[in-house]
Amino acid sequence: MRYEESVCEGRNPVLEAFRSGKTVDRLFVLDGCHDGPVQTILREAKKSDTLINYVKKERLDSMSETGKHQGVIAYLAAYEYASVEDILNAAKDAGEDPFIILLDGIEDPHNLGAIIRTANLSGAHGIIIPKHGACGLTATVAKASAGAINYTPVAKVTNISKTIEELKEQGMWFACADADGQIMYNLNLTGPIGLVIGNEGKGVSRLVKKNCDYIASIPMKGNIDSLNASVATGVLAFEIVRQRR
Amino acid sequence: MRYEESVCEGRNPVLEAFRSGKTVDRLFVLDGCHDGPVQTILREAKKSDTLINYVKKERLDSMSETGKHQGVIAYLAAYEYASVEDILNAAKDAGEDPFIILLDGIEDPHNLGAIIRTANLSGAHGIIIPKHGACGLTATVAKASAGAINYTPVAKVTNISKTIEELKEQGMWFACADADGQIMYNLNLTGPIGLVIGNEGKGVSRLVKKNCDYIASIPMKGNIDSLNASVATGVLAFEIVRQRR
Repeated sequence: MRYEESVCEGRNPVLEAFRSGKTVDRLFVLDGCHDGPVQTILREAKKSDTLINYVKKERLDSMSETGKHQGVIAYLAAYEYASVEDILNAAKDAGEDPFIILLDGIEDPHNLGAIIRTANLSGAHGIIIPKHGACGLTATVAKASAGAINYTPVAKVTNISKTIEELKEQGMWFACADADGQIMYNLNLTGPIGLVIGNEGKGVSRLVKKNCDYIASIPMKGNIDSLNASVATGVLAFEIVRQRR
Repeated sequence: MRYEESVCEGRNPVLEAFRSGKTVDRLFVLDGCHDGPVQTILREAKKSDTLINYVKKERLDSMSETGKHQGVIAYLAAYEYASVEDILNAAKDAGEDPFIILLDGIEDPHNLGAIIRTANLSGAHGIIIPKHGACGLTATVAKASAGAINYTPVAKVTNISKTIEELKEQGMWFACADADGQIMYNLNLTGPIGLVIGNEGKGVSRLVKKNCDYIASIPMKGNIDSLNASVATGVLAFEIVRQRR
């Protein structure tokens, strides 16, 4: 399940990565480059719904570790992604109500790793992250997860808000973390639940928040605005554990 | 209160740092170097009870950023330390039972920063860290604390275990985090309390654990051993918040 590489440069290596079924987190292509091999790579990328960034030569040059990118650099996932179905099946297999952590744009790999660790130990059945604007399953994340990445499935979706809608139709309830909600102790967080955590700086996005059933707040004293995102996830996840006991 | 530098190299700059009252977290001195100026620096270091490391020339050379260390390199704290007394006074001023977080060897600056953030928002009156084998108040910690370092006092002590003994004489109770204790919900964590968190890899040291009144465990499912240290601190700190409400 583990891949060793994390960056892949040059036309043949990148094409090979796609064809061998590796998960490319992000593909960088020289803007305006339309020749045959690059078109083939782009076709493969679209087939697997990979995020494509068209960038200038200077950017590619500065990203390149080998100096031989030939107009394409691919960042590979260090680990394979699961599907949302896999996560729901994990809950079903355990005979438990689904408990899923949805991350609306966590960018820091140490936070993502710590959250995978928390998900594993709080009994969450999996994590859902967005394809765009978020940290993927890199080698740093794998290390920060202290092995939890081998047990807890992580799914990547195009649109967190749409995924929430789909899961609500299947009977799940969603609580997002924000300071302006109800104190978490006063919410019923038992039953099939999705816990939604926002971006480190911007918090939960407007549309995602609107789609949630509850806004859950951690009772805060003190002088600053918010907890570290992985700490907030831990506090809320273990409030769910407490209520479910 | 803030210092800008974090590393200081060369005899005059290091001596000047001590004489101007800056907090030197750690002093590295060329092993076997006994001349006048170095002796003066060592005297200043001992006066302020600074941790001194005697190292070989190769080590100093590799640490040096300027190449002009003249046998001495000092790492300055990015922020000033408070005293344990300051923390107790903060509790007294607030008219609250003291709530202190003691870190028995947290090494990762991101963890320390996140814990200072948690301390601030959970209403802890301060943090106590050990002088040896632990991360100090570096610039990275300050950044990770998201400003909380400006509000929440951090004290540095020579021996965590001895500090616990002294604070117990003043009526405080201590709970350390470990997997082999009682589930945190079943402990009485109200009243004057010190929450003790161990090192990221090794956990709480034997002697410190022996000095604690309780061993508090977070209820864990899953496949891996432990939560990230800053997440565990958050979960336990907010269990104290819940019980104190």
